Amino acid sequence: MGIDIGATKALGVALGGDGSVVAQVRFPTQAGPDGVLRTAARVVDELSGSVGPASMVGIGVPGMVDPDSGEVSHAVNLDIDGVPLALAARLAEVVGRRVVVENDVNVAALGVAALTGSTDLAYLGIGTGLAAGIVVDGRLRRGASGVAGEIGHVSVDPAGVLCGCGQRGCLETIASGSALARMWPGGESARVGRLRKAALDGDAHAATVWNQFADGLAQAVTAVALGVDPEVIVLGGGVVEAGDALLHAVEEALDRRASRSPFLATLHLADRLERVPSGPFAAVGAAMLGASRS
Amino acid sequence: MGIDIGATKALGVALGGDGSVVAQVRFPTQAGPDGVLRTAARVVDELSGSVGPASMVGIGVPGMVDPDSGEVSHAVNLDIDGVPLALAARLAEVVGRRVVVENDVNVAALGVAALTGSTDLAYLGIGTGLAAGIVVDGRLRRGASGVAGEIGHVSVDPAGVLCGCGQRGCLETIASGSALARMWPGGESARVGRLRKAALDGDAHAATVWNQFADGLAQAVTAVALGVDPEVIVLGGGVVEAGDALLHAVEEALDRRASRSPFLATLHLADRLERVPSGPFAAVGAAMLGASRS
Repeated sequence: MGIDIGATKALGVALGGDGSVVAQVRFPTQAGPDGVLRTAARVVDELSGSVGPASMVGIGVPGMVDPDSGEVSHAVNLDIDGVPLALAARLAEVVGRRVVVENDVNVAALGVAALTGSTDLAYLGIGTGLAAGIVVDGRLRRGASGVAGEIGHVSVDPAGVLCGCGQRGCLETIASGSALARMWPGGESARVGRLRKAALDGDAHAATVWNQFADGLAQAVTAVALGVDPEVIVLGGGVVEAGDALLHAVEEALDRRASRSPFLATLHLADRLERVPSGPFAAVGAAMLGASRS
Repeated sequence: MGIDIGATKALGVALGGDGSVVAQVRFPTQAGPDGVLRTAARVVDELSGSVGPASMVGIGVPGMVDPDSGEVSHAVNLDIDGVPLALAARLAEVVGRRVVVENDVNVAALGVAALTGSTDLAYLGIGTGLAAGIVVDGRLRRGASGVAGEIGHVSVDPAGVLCGCGQRGCLETIASGSALARMWPGGESARVGRLRKAALDGDAHAATVWNQFADGLAQAVTAVALGVDPEVIVLGGGVVEAGDALLHAVEEALDRRASRSPFLATLHLADRLERVPSGPFAAVGAAMLGASRS
């Protein structure tokens, strides 16, 4: 059983013995520590009939996660800040099942691997922040301090914008939802779509921002390639899942960079970009957590 | 049997069944394709009495290596450029043993792992260029296109110096032997030592260059950590192996960066830095190539 808890909705899946999705539910996410717990418990309750009594629960959440203790902190989107939420322990008490918790980008990477059959990939999650989940030899690579793939905090411009992390010019300051909100202020919803439309309609500033954003993502893809060099790099997160236009723009930005650098040209990065598979990949990845732990 | 072929010398080792070094030889490297072949054949000949007749030969060389074919190209330091040298095939013909060839930074990483017992590390090789060899779960991580760890070509300053790769502001342009030669021109030998002495003697420009160089290496260490997040990051290459002063300077630069970034502070990067082990680690790593292939 896997649950992908996002800021607005929680998506749960039950997997059969062959890994296929046998049941799926979706509820609005209730905010705050107690709300998140209630939401998760409701999903488990709804799916319990579809899995065996000993099945564990895997959960993906935005924010900092200690995968050993199952504690969640700094999950601002879920209104969990300050005191960490012992999500694994408290939910296990309520539902009587073993619970494993992981960062949302990591479960997305596991889920993409499961649904596509790839054993060597990076999932570049472009949400409020920017981070990659990495699967090597079919297994999640967390790293010694849990920051493998945190390329959002690679500084690429000493004269850049101050990042929340304290550094300047981090990739996250040019290639993330929050970067886009700064560069193209206004209503939250469908920002990328509106930006692209304005650029297509001849708004020169919008075109500049659009190209900068795509180029920032191209730099992020390059940083992933020069670190881990995965076979496939999947772009995900709300910004990208809205459509293919941004994916194409990033491919074009990668090609522009390759045209200036014979070295980058040998990497064929544009060909290695993919969009996320259809289906509830993050929830599936959450359900796979048990396997990746063993 | 493993051979580390550098620009000036070739170091060969024979390993016993328990992985210990049972014999060791060193010859000056002869330049050019035929010279490199003669040098390697001479090492193999010298060590042949110390290993079984079926033992393979592993070789580490600077330059681009196709590990499948054993071809070496763009090894400017060995005077191999233009036409690639089919090192594995041609040496195998001469010595009657199976030959495997790998990039020098990768064999160094394997060798450090073998000599220290670590199964999760990055070896940051600071030579003319800058690149990391990565060992994950005890195995060399080459990546899908062979560039895992090539963080020397992560661009960290859009206003930086033009790099040989065609990009601008690559880490290699601020943190490598060639970067140092540009920033602190003069005789080749012991450049880092002379730079440090000048800085200590009150040369303000030397002090600036020294600090910039150490900070560039700190940025490289950070990029490795945010990509792969290895337990241990080992600084190697002629520049570093000369002494501990540069290692300490990089630790200080990492601490300065951590003091400005609470996020970086959580990574304790200065504590994870190590210098290379004593012993012929690169040749040992070359001898380990067979194991890493299986």
